[in-house]
Amino acid sequence: MKKLTESTEIRLDPWMSLYAGRASGLSASEVRSLFAVASRPEVVSLAGGMPFVTALGDDVIQQAVGRVMSHSGAMALQYGSGQGDPGLREHITEVMALEGIAANADDVVITTGSQQGLDLVAKLFIDPGDVILAEGPSYVGAIGVFRSYQADIVHVPFDHDGLNPQALQDTIDRVTAEGKTIKFLYTIPDFHNPAGVTLSASRRPEILEITKRHGILLVEDNPYGLLYFDAPPPDAIRSIDDAGILYLGSFSKTLAPGFRVGWILAPHGIREKLILAQESAVLSPSSFSQMVISDYLAHSDWKGQINIFRGLYRERRDAMLDALGENLPNLSWTIPNGGFYVWLTLAPGMDSKAMLPLAVRELVAYTPGTAFYADGDGHSEIRLSFCYPTPAEIRVGVQRLAKVVGNELSLLETFHPTAPVRIPTKQSRHVSSPPPNLN
Amino acid sequence: MKKLTESTEIRLDPWMSLYAGRASGLSASEVRSLFAVASRPEVVSLAGGMPFVTALGDDVIQQAVGRVMSHSGAMALQYGSGQGDPGLREHITEVMALEGIAANADDVVITTGSQQGLDLVAKLFIDPGDVILAEGPSYVGAIGVFRSYQADIVHVPFDHDGLNPQALQDTIDRVTAEGKTIKFLYTIPDFHNPAGVTLSASRRPEILEITKRHGILLVEDNPYGLLYFDAPPPDAIRSIDDAGILYLGSFSKTLAPGFRVGWILAPHGIREKLILAQESAVLSPSSFSQMVISDYLAHSDWKGQINIFRGLYRERRDAMLDALGENLPNLSWTIPNGGFYVWLTLAPGMDSKAMLPLAVRELVAYTPGTAFYADGDGHSEIRLSFCYPTPAEIRVGVQRLAKVVGNELSLLETFHPTAPVRIPTKQSRHVSSPPPNLN
Repeated sequence: MKKLTESTEIRLDPWMSLYAGRASGLSASEVRSLFAVASRPEVVSLAGGMPFVTALGDDVIQQAVGRVMSHSGAMALQYGSGQGDPGLREHITEVMALEGIAANADDVVITTGSQQGLDLVAKLFIDPGDVILAEGPSYVGAIGVFRSYQADIVHVPFDHDGLNPQALQDTIDRVTAEGKTIKFLYTIPDFHNPAGVTLSASRRPEILEITKRHGILLVEDNPYGLLYFDAPPPDAIRSIDDAGILYLGSFSKTLAPGFRVGWILAPHGIREKLILAQESAVLSPSSFSQMVISDYLAHSDWKGQINIFRGLYRERRDAMLDALGENLPNLSWTIPNGGFYVWLTLAPGMDSKAMLPLAVRELVAYTPGTAFYADGDGHSEIRLSFCYPTPAEIRVGVQRLAKVVGNELSLLETFHPTAPVRIPTKQSRHVSSPPPNLN
Repeated sequence: MKKLTESTEIRLDPWMSLYAGRASGLSASEVRSLFAVASRPEVVSLAGGMPFVTALGDDVIQQAVGRVMSHSGAMALQYGSGQGDPGLREHITEVMALEGIAANADDVVITTGSQQGLDLVAKLFIDPGDVILAEGPSYVGAIGVFRSYQADIVHVPFDHDGLNPQALQDTIDRVTAEGKTIKFLYTIPDFHNPAGVTLSASRRPEILEITKRHGILLVEDNPYGLLYFDAPPPDAIRSIDDAGILYLGSFSKTLAPGFRVGWILAPHGIREKLILAQESAVLSPSSFSQMVISDYLAHSDWKGQINIFRGLYRERRDAMLDALGENLPNLSWTIPNGGFYVWLTLAPGMDSKAMLPLAVRELVAYTPGTAFYADGDGHSEIRLSFCYPTPAEIRVGVQRLAKVVGNELSLLETFHPTAPVRIPTKQSRHVSSPPPNLN
């Protein structure tokens, strides 16, 4: 229905001929349209990636605002530097030290959430037709922004230990042989969104060695690294070397997304360009948001708060894994050791996108796997989020999902007993831009 | 010196070959390097465009934060919609009503400051080589962002009544005859930055009629419209018609820039695309900033606050005009009826850029005119800001400037009595991208 409305609007848009070529890469993601569905209170949403911010201590933000406004109100209300508040950038080096990164605050650029970090990196590096490598599946917001700069997104296969170095090497060889230019590898090493897997310690230097040898950048997106449930993940890839890596961090998951504060840690020359791009995009990031977070990091037990989040999300992960084991024993899923997501594989021949309206009728929402591929793959996959609903809601949600899946399986067996089923290949996949609309 | 450092850095950047074509359009503006100079306390800065935020009532922001966090804390800390908070968008229609605009909150898109509005519009409409029309001089941040998308910026002459309709028509005819595509006219109708002039009431419908007739958009950037000193300016161009106009507004000058909250009012079809572009760029603008401003507009005397700003800036404008009359009687300047800026024309043959280091040695800073042209023009012009320094500081600053100007004039007369002086032509000017570095 949404689609019909949109195409009607576009037909009626008298300025159609004025849009830039890159506007064709802008399309509404499935996650977007799901936000509307999931907001109905009777629906258990296993779809969004909203952190459970009510777990933040009472008044901790008000106290920080009070201190900031009393001591540096005029500065918090004013324009700041394009690179971001120096005090906050110092604190950020302390945050990254927890992941083994030794960084200089001078190499940090503050962004309007880590999504804007992706936008700046894409703007700086992507010419139309350039190839960007990314796990398949990958973060829907990254696919969207690379696409909006007319990138050609090529997925690299990965497994339960994360990106496969040999598969990466093979993909680079193949794309290069086609005469195409690869600009960077985009990867989420810890508690992958949407797949929930973590890149193993031994593969990290191998992956970096490959990208450096081929003269392409490695963009390490790590919003979830501190939200581990048992042992911490291996140190960040950026801890191995400071050359050839753009590291993206965020306060959206360890504090709150409402401030829209993230950062990029970049090699010196690239950092200079990123600051110019940032000034061009927003003049300077919000002084108010930055100074409130800087004060929070200086005066609150932020590591204790992250521990609270860890315990909370671990309990929800456990609830989801238990419910999946009880209700959908014949399917397979990933077992995340941190983060927000479980990646569920349906039976061959099932269509996660077609099944979504049926699920919503049963009052449960999820994100179809197709949202996370640039090439329309993912039909038999589903992302389940355990970050926002309570353990009790998660159990109810998975029960409802199991009912829908069961109905679909019966239909499939009844009406298409011999229909050829589509088995997803785990070869690298490739799509030219502009890509198909994800809706 | 800055330039030398930068080119050294660029030579050492091993990733040089990976940058996108548009990265060559990113250059540090003169305003940027001046921020560093102007921050030394002994320098009177007539350079920056920082509003005098200390004129905001005590505690008014803390009270708003307190109310937001008590009533809707979880929402303020969470992701929001890409289009922006519905409550804030309603309040924004009340703000725009003061400029004669009848708008629906549904057609407003919140941006991370109005600079991000320019970035989204540029991203959506500019293909490399497209022509963007703008007053000459124009806002340095707009020139920067259009350039970063590889636009070909063509200046349109204007006078004390703002953009000249006939000159606009002639420029469109000439550019079109050259086979180039014009995407939009960018204009600042009220208290122009940097020129201080206001588009007359009679020219507003004429300008709009011309852009519509030629099928190009009109981007109306109006951050200063409510900051008038005597009579209000004519109603916004957007009050005449809701088709063919993108209106950009901002809270940076009427409240505080530290929140980074601005907006775009757009025709329906374009609004849809802007929301997608906004989601791609930042997912959603800051809920925290938006809800604090929304609460401030609901509970504080925001119109009274704007009146306070008006009185304050009028007093500073008067101090500047008086000081110019007393100290530089042989030069000419514009007389702004609102906003932040006076545009000063030096004697022919003088170079505002070369004179700047001498001025800083005399402890006064300004912005050279060259920053506001895409084509290197503006050598004999200067932007003077009266928004941030006190009236007493403004008087001292203009006295110091007069001393520097006097010295330069003596030198010019002594050493180049018969040298040909460069008279700036007021024909439309034109430059291909990438443009010369402004430093």
